[in-house]
Amino acid sequence: MPKTLWIVLALVLMAGWAGAADLPVAPNGIALYPEFMSWKPLAPSYREDKGHIRLITANDVALAGLRAGKNPLPDGSVLAKVAWKAVKHPAFPVATEPGEFVQVEFMVKDSRKYAATGGWGFARFVGKELKPYGKDPGFVAECFGCHTPVAAKDYLFTSLPSVP
Amino acid sequence: MPKTLWIVLALVLMAGWAGAADLPVAPNGIALYPEFMSWKPLAPSYREDKGHIRLITANDVALAGLRAGKNPLPDGSVLAKVAWKAVKHPAFPVATEPGEFVQVEFMVKDSRKYAATGGWGFARFVGKELKPYGKDPGFVAECFGCHTPVAAKDYLFTSLPSVP
Repeated sequence: MPKTLWIVLALVLMAGWAGAADLPVAPNGIALYPEFMSWKPLAPSYREDKGHIRLITANDVALAGLRAGKNPLPDGSVLAKVAWKAVKHPAFPVATEPGEFVQVEFMVKDSRKYAATGGWGFARFVGKELKPYGKDPGFVAECFGCHTPVAAKDYLFTSLPSVP
Repeated sequence: MPKTLWIVLALVLMAGWAGAADLPVAPNGIALYPEFMSWKPLAPSYREDKGHIRLITANDVALAGLRAGKNPLPDGSVLAKVAWKAVKHPAFPVATEPGEFVQVEFMVKDSRKYAATGGWGFARFVGKELKPYGKDPGFVAECFGCHTPVAAKDYLFTSLPSVP
């Protein structure tokens, strides 16, 4: 192969590697899904205690599963929960809307890989820097513990909202 | 043309007509966009005064315009605001989530057709029956009046939320 072709190939590989390396990775190996705002919406949510307004989005596998009433959801399902500081709209203060970005959290279904936590892998990326949450893979105990009360709903707090 | 072909053609046309007739139509002629939950999310919102939790979705034209910072948005832009009764999650009451469906509202950009109301056509469909709001086309004065404080933002209350 000519030398220039090798150089081009090396550059292409480096570009791909750099692209993947740019994504933050949680201590359990789950990388950020950068398309979380391009997925379809599941539902809005409001956390009075934290002063957050949130949006739950779902990839196509998760959404198809939810629409078909599947419980548990199929492998490949991914849900994102995006949180912003809840702020009053400057021109219309009875409306609360997203302010500063707080975090994005993911639940990734792989029934074998994450068998110990209901088939779900968890990840959280915090602040503008999208800093991975947790010091080691043990951080998922906190996520899973919080989701245990909804074990019967495949550990999901959010359902498909009622729409005519 | 054989007789059977005419019958098939008539049935196809009737099916199409019946499908369109099923959609509720606002007094100004705007029909419900049934795909509003399949559009991508713009933002969540919470209305303390009404006890509503809401989701704003946008069609691809509107979303591309918002991402490109266009003001006004291009013709063909459509936004939906879906409202549910805000209810406390039964297993986690500090979280507020969608309960009963309340209504869906649309803003449809056509700078010529709706020149009198900032280039926007408005429509609201209420309750499980998706009953068109308003007795006659004059109902839009109420919608437009409420959106006037955000005239400088192309009459939109909702902006693209901050995401890293």
